[in-house]
Order: sequence, then structure tokens, then C-alpha cells
Amino acid sequence: MAKRKSEFGLKRPFHELGESMFLPHLSVDCVIFGFHEGSLKVLLLQWKDGPWCLPGGFVKHEESIDRSAIRILKERTGLDAIFLKQFHTFGDPDREKGKRFKKGWISKRFVTVGYYALVEYSKVFPQPDQLSSACVWWDVQSIPDLIYDHKQIVALALNTLRLSLNDHPVGYNLLPSKFTMPELLRLYETILGQELDRRNFQKRMLSLDILIKLNERKTGGAHKAPFLYRFDKKKYDRAMKQGLNQSW
Amino acid sequence: MAKRKSEFGLKRPFHELGESMFLPHLSVDCVIFGFHEGSLKVLLLQWKDGPWCLPGGFVKHEESIDRSAIRILKERTGLDAIFLKQFHTFGDPDREKGKRFKKGWISKRFVTVGYYALVEYSKVFPQPDQLSSACVWWDVQSIPDLIYDHKQIVALALNTLRLSLNDHPVGYNLLPSKFTMPELLRLYETILGQELDRRNFQKRMLSLDILIKLNERKTGGAHKAPFLYRFDKKKYDRAMKQGLNQSW
Repeated sequence: MAKRKSEFGLKRPFHELGESMFLPHLSVDCVIFGFHEGSLKVLLLQWKDGPWCLPGGFVKHEESIDRSAIRILKERTGLDAIFLKQFHTFGDPDREKGKRFKKGWISKRFVTVGYYALVEYSKVFPQPDQLSSACVWWDVQSIPDLIYDHKQIVALALNTLRLSLNDHPVGYNLLPSKFTMPELLRLYETILGQELDRRNFQKRMLSLDILIKLNERKTGGAHKAPFLYRFDKKKYDRAMKQGLNQSW
Repeated sequence: MAKRKSEFGLKRPFHELGESMFLPHLSVDCVIFGFHEGSLKVLLLQWKDGPWCLPGGFVKHEESIDRSAIRILKERTGLDAIFLKQFHTFGDPDREKGKRFKKGWISKRFVTVGYYALVEYSKVFPQPDQLSSACVWWDVQSIPDLIYDHKQIVALALNTLRLSLNDHPVGYNLLPSKFTMPELLRLYETILGQELDRRNFQKRMLSLDILIKLNERKTGGAHKAPFLYRFDKKKYDRAMKQGLNQSW
């Protein structure tokens, strides 16, 4: 990496500055999912000299890894205080095959902690970092080649998100505050990547006891317009913490 | 830590030796669960000078974190090639409050990667390490005070194990190769810490399509003795990898 003005405004190369600011050998990578027009997207960065990668960064000496992830996410999306979930740490010594940094702390082996987030697509203003030329949404079905093990990281994040639907609710912050059952169904189908049975879905969803059915329909007049629902935020939050009712 | 013969037979203090052998700032802690006489146990070490802790260790420069966990587990239990699952990385800078090491790499902040394992109680021969005076099984309901954040680590491992029952089978290597439905039920009840409905359990379990019902009963004679089952290992392994049928 050439000498350039760092993000801290200093004229020291990043690999020198990094050594004094961050823990060695440890990074954070974020898989940021968004939901838009019925498809699931993931936010990717493109380096100025080529490859695509996940938005990531390093852990400051006095910073928790969770705070590092929040900071990185805020830098890339402008979003604050959103749902971020650590899902796996990737620690294969060969995970950065073909690493292009040849000197300094950044050339060393890094173990990376993976986080994923579900964000409101419309509220995100993707911002490339100083090393990147682009920061854009890709459809998860058609992401480009990624550096290192980043494709595996995305795959595992998606799998974790899918499995999490068995234990935790999803939808708050992704849907409008009032939504219909078909809208909620569509969100689940998009995340799971498969069609679901409408009746079973509705029955299961209502049994979770996290929804409040409103005395309103989607459109004023039509008789068959679907009813609107909103989340019971207290029960939703409890389910996020404790998990949904066990199926056993 | 006083100078002592290290585990590598060298007369150098551990904090010097460690610096050259291991990645800085990174450790691994293992929550090892065993099932015995209808209760869930966890394996704990006691330091020679006092507190109880989880069996843990460090990551060699050329070693994957998974291999580190396997090595540590083998050192403590004698067990090879068992099911070990990474569940969370703990990276709060204050997690080691009251740390007693004052110099060298070991006095620095450590981020620790947590793994849990389910092992066959009867096959484990707990072995204290060179810094410990005891390595024994404790009932998860009544573990002693633990150093640092180790109690939180145990709690999260247990919670992860419980949630995992929604997505993955359990029992292989914990039960005899042929077992009855009541024995399998007891294992689930023990892990979940609650009683389950016998009929619902049997129905759900059979629907998972991982069991083979044998044409044998538990005891030769009695007419009401329960049937024996074994796991369909191919389907069991697939379910471990891909997850059980989604409930959505």
C-alpha cells in the first residue's frame, strides 16, 4: 500500500499507523444484508486496484470487537445502532491466500471475526473507504468473485441468518411499521430462498405471539384487502433475546 | 508465573516461551459438556493457586483456531476427533478483570474464541494441565465461581447448545449405539433443562427421519419393553451439516 494521507489525516503509511492503533492479527468483517424489491442484497466494496471484498476493519487496542463492528458498519453505511450479530470467527492460517501486503503488521496472518447485519435498504448511503473505489449492493444470488475466504464468509452468514429464523423473529426495521401478512411472508421467502405455504406460515407466525393485528386493512375500500399488522415490540425484543418458543 | 519446566521441557518461563510460539492477544476456551446419570456436566480446571476456569489455551502461529481447540481438548480429555463447535468470540477489553499476570505477552488483553463439545462422559479421563491442580466434572446446575467472564462463556455455550436442538440432531456418541425413545427423550430433557411431552417428542423425532427403528426391544422378554432405535448415520450426518428440515 503506497503512502497516502490516512483516514486520520496523518502522512504515515497505513501499515505503520495500524500497528500502533490496532490489535495485531485480528480483523472484523461485516456481511450487510438489505431487502429491496423482493430480493436479498449484500453490500460489497471494491478495492481501487481490483478485487471485491466485504467491508471490514481492525480492532482498536481499547475497543471491544462488537464496537469495532459497529464503527465499521457506521463508516460504510451511515447507520447507527442497528442489529449486528457476530456469527463466526475465521481462523485458518491459509485464509488469506494471495495476500498482497508484503510488509508490516498488515502482511501478517489475520483471524477475522464475522458479523452480519440486516439493514433498511432505503436508509443506507453506501460509502467507499479510502482504499476503495466502490461500495454497492449486490444481489446475493449473483455476487462477484471475492478476495480470500470472503465468499465463504457470505455463505455462512446467509446460512446463519436462515437458521436464525427458527429461533428469532425478523422484520422489525426491514418492513414498514404496519405491514400485511403477504409482505411478511415475502420477506421470509426471500431470506430462505424458497416458497412457503401461505396458510402454514400465517398459522405459525400468529402462534409466535409477536404480532398485533390492527383493525385496518391495507387499502381503504376493497373488501378483500389484507389486514395490517405491527410487531408487539416488547414481545419481539424478548423473542430476540430469549429465542422463540422452543419447538421441543 | 514463576520459572518452571514448561510443557515443552524447556527451562524458560511460560510468558517468554508463549510469545514466540503463539499469536498474541488470542486464546481459545472450551466448554466441554458430558452426559452422566441423567445430568449435564461441564469440565472445569482449578488453578494451583485458586480459581476455577475453563480449559483453554493459545493458538500457534501456523495453526488454525479449530485445530487449537482440538489440541486443547485432547490434552485435557484424551479424546480425539470429537464434535467441537465454535459458538462465539469474546472480545470485551474488560473481560479479564483482575488479571494476575503483570508482565509479558500473557499480561496483555486477550480475545478468546469459545468452543463447545459434547463428549461421552465415560470415555473421558480428565487431566489437569501444568498450571492446574484439578480437572473435574461439575454439574452445570451448580458450577463454582469462575475467573474472568468464564461463567458467561458457559452460559452462552449452554444456550447455544439448547437452540441448536432446533436445527441439529444430538445423541450420536452420547447414547449407546442402540437406545430407546425414553433414553433419547431423557437426553433432550437434560440438555433443555425441562420436561417434554413424551408423545409430541416421539412424533417430532420420528418426523426428522434420522432414526431407524429396530425389530428388537430393550429387554428380551417383557411385552411392554420399549423398542430399540439407532441413528441412520448418513442422514444424521447430513442433518448435522445442512440442518434439520426447516420448520417454516
